[in-house]
Amino acid sequence: MSASPFPHRHLLGLAGLHPWEITYLLDEAEQWVTLNRGTAKHDGRLAGLTQMNAFFEASTRTLLSFEVAGKRLGADVVNMAVAQSSVKKGETLIDTAITLNAMRADVMVIRHDRSGAVHLIADKVNCPVLNAGDGRHEHPTQGLLDALTIRRRKGRIEGLVVAICGDVLHSRVARSNIHALTTLGAEVRVVGPPTLLPAGVERMGAQRFTDFDAGLDGADVVMMLRVQRERMDGALVPSAREFHALYGLTHKRVERAAPDALVMHPGPMNRGVEIDSAVADDPVRSAITEQVEMGVAVRMACLDVLTRERRGIAA
Amino acid sequence: MSASPFPHRHLLGLAGLHPWEITYLLDEAEQWVTLNRGTAKHDGRLAGLTQMNAFFEASTRTLLSFEVAGKRLGADVVNMAVAQSSVKKGETLIDTAITLNAMRADVMVIRHDRSGAVHLIADKVNCPVLNAGDGRHEHPTQGLLDALTIRRRKGRIEGLVVAICGDVLHSRVARSNIHALTTLGAEVRVVGPPTLLPAGVERMGAQRFTDFDAGLDGADVVMMLRVQRERMDGALVPSAREFHALYGLTHKRVERAAPDALVMHPGPMNRGVEIDSAVADDPVRSAITEQVEMGVAVRMACLDVLTRERRGIAA
Amino acid sequence: MSASPFPHRHLLGLAGLHPWEITYLLDEAEQWVTLNRGTAKHDGRLAGLTQMNAFFEASTRTLLSFEVAGKRLGADVVNMAVAQSSVKKGETLIDTAITLNAMRADVMVIRHDRSGAVHLIADKVNCPVLNAGDGRHEHPTQGLLDALTIRRRKGRIEGLVVAICGDVLHSRVARSNIHALTTLGAEVRVVGPPTLLPAGVERMGAQRFTDFDAGLDGADVVMMLRVQRERMDGALVPSAREFHALYGLTHKRVERAAPDALVMHPGPMNRGVEIDSAVADDPVRSAITEQVEMGVAVRMACLDVLTRERRGIAA
Repeated sequence: MSASPFPHRHLLGLAGLHPWEITYLLDEAEQWVTLNRGTAKHDGRLAGLTQMNAFFEASTRTLLSFEVAGKRLGADVVNMAVAQSSVKKGETLIDTAITLNAMRADVMVIRHDRSGAVHLIADKVNCPVLNAGDGRHEHPTQGLLDALTIRRRKGRIEGLVVAICGDVLHSRVARSNIHALTTLGAEVRVVGPPTLLPAGVERMGAQRFTDFDAGLDGADVVMMLRVQRERMDGALVPSAREFHALYGLTHKRVERAAPDALVMHPGPMNRGVEIDSAVADDPVRSAITEQVEMGVAVRMACLDVLTRERRGIAA
Repeated sequence: MSASPFPHRHLLGLAGLHPWEITYLLDEAEQWVTLNRGTAKHDGRLAGLTQMNAFFEASTRTLLSFEVAGKRLGADVVNMAVAQSSVKKGETLIDTAITLNAMRADVMVIRHDRSGAVHLIADKVNCPVLNAGDGRHEHPTQGLLDALTIRRRKGRIEGLVVAICGDVLHSRVARSNIHALTTLGAEVRVVGPPTLLPAGVERMGAQRFTDFDAGLDGADVVMMLRVQRERMDGALVPSAREFHALYGLTHKRVERAAPDALVMHPGPMNRGVEIDSAVADDPVRSAITEQVEMGVAVRMACLDVLTRERRGIAA
Repeated sequence: MSASPFPHRHLLGLAGLHPWEITYLLDEAEQWVTLNRGTAKHDGRLAGLTQMNAFFEASTRTLLSFEVAGKRLGADVVNMAVAQSSVKKGETLIDTAITLNAMRADVMVIRHDRSGAVHLIADKVNCPVLNAGDGRHEHPTQGLLDALTIRRRKGRIEGLVVAICGDVLHSRVARSNIHALTTLGAEVRVVGPPTLLPAGVERMGAQRFTDFDAGLDGADVVMMLRVQRERMDGALVPSAREFHALYGLTHKRVERAAPDALVMHPGPMNRGVEIDSAVADDPVRSAITEQVEMGVAVRMACLDVLTRERRGIAA
């Protein structure tokens, strides 16, 4: 195993990964982009393996993406729909994880609304765990799919200026992207209202901008985040109209970025709030649909790579 | 493709189809009736294809029927459970459709509570779309399964007198049946209280009856509709007791129809409201269970026929 | 068929089964324990068969266990999620069953919150029915998995003293275990507050203890039940604290049992109520995780054995 290009048991976050580890996952994903664009989108390498998706937080698109990924690889995929109410205590969470483990899962995909919950589960089970988003912490496959989208569109990541804009404070998407993109040599700016920017972004290697126009200036990639009112408890929450006036991506504003700037959004979009439809649907600039497509490919790569050891393949 | 017996990309409704197109789908379904009655109910022709069922309106039996149909054909089937609340705006609906499309669905099965929503989606995606019911508009596979049931029981459809009874106004089932059965040469009557009959049924080739007994007179097929109180907003809603007294199918009333009249209902039934148990469970007349069975077969036929082009088969 | 070691069409309960029939199912489960512990957890013997899981009562772990079991055997597995509200009348329940049957299910797994509902369904359908828990009546696969766990850990069941403790009155788990374990020759005690013990346990071959310490005395197996407040309507319900003081399994209390006593719980546990964490997590005594594992194996055995006739295999 020492020679494996990805010598990790789990994928809980992108923080701390080496550039070649991230690049390896992106390289692996390419084959699945090709497969998925063909007619017979099936590869049997996970046949006989059981993939359990345990989503402790409601999700449609991420769950669907992981389910499609696993089924295309031939896994037996089961979803555990967890009512929020039944998982109030950490103990119960662990008991749930132990139960799934006892059913002999070969890989678990976990989403939870609390930061660190997925890590807690990973410590208790015998199989690889894939973090599908935990609280405000990380959403590593989103970071990977965004990196893959940029690399395919721009031909590289190193040296690009990427502006991650909006509610960065509550965004695990932002966090995973900052880790991935700074590791791969991009210049990352986080741009948003002071109340929605986390402390310590500089330590993560990013620059901080509270002036939207300044943050966009010359950017190669403009990555808008979803305004997540449901997570803004306690903070001063701007109205949709206020947010749009100050931090909504309009056609006019995007002109500040590089002429060939890419526009991205993890979805689902609040059209007219953080992004205007004219920008979201721009046939040249927008990479939003491609992000969704890369998501399936990246998840197939992660499921494949993480289960290699138990399939007896030197990763 | 010009020589295909079913040269349509989507199946959004039965209105406008030629008789030979409907007949072709019914003929194709016959093989699946045979397969489903055997032990090994599996045919691999959709292997490697991804079928996405996106039901924006709650459903159990139709969703289950499509899921069973797809799995028996070997497809990778995923369901997207959509909370009503998250899809309030047309824009969001389109974004959802684009997301599913970007995951490279090979066929989408869509149900929505608004007429026309499925059509809207079909315009935006690269794969065949099957309408599983949209608002009051159409429910084409229900129309096909009813036609198949009648054809198998009666040996023909042409020349039969079919009475479609009850809440026709709110019924997409009625609408699809009127299209299918008039196209295939049946004499269709719509029978119900004036407030629950739509305008313009004559233009669809059907006759209008507000007197239940007169509508049933000599009918070869009596098709009862489900009373859908949840859709009767605004209209004068009769009580269950009133409805039963005036338009409930009793053993006595069914005697008005032809001696060998077939009794049908799309389910789920409100026993004692629009239909009496004695009639619903009549071992000779009732075709209600057979309708469910034909549903799976018809859906297998539609999934097969609509995906042929992408499977490289001249349809 | 007369020579079959399990000549029953359905598995609705363990009451009335012969010891060799129960033993046969346990023996059959052993192969699936082995398979599930390997890497490729797949056996194609149910390929082409449709397994329908219809859970009229909310469940996550039992549903998941049956789903995993069916998929590992290669079945096409579909789940019917039933809103409690839509199934208020017995008639509707039967209609639902007839609908599933008409879709040509090869085996149905049914859970319902009313005792006897699964039996009612079994009478109406053409395929084997597996009871996944009905009201306070039976939960036969739980009884089997508990018996298998005990047999593997203790090497035998005959002659063992098994104390089933807690809310026995509302527990279908207790009922199935009493049947299985007395049939296999164990000495079964039911232990709990007088208001939570059912009448007539002696007729089922068990002994009744209202003193917890006396009931535990020298027991080889201590099986705790989940306190199910949601089912305790009408009865005098003790508080969690009261229950724990009187009938919670503590480290001190478990010392009353045999030195090598096994501790079991069907899950999910109310830690600190009916069982202390120190006992639940005891690495030597606790068999709780193994119970979950045995659940999948036992369900695979039942699905296999019950579908043999339709697969053309002399059971």
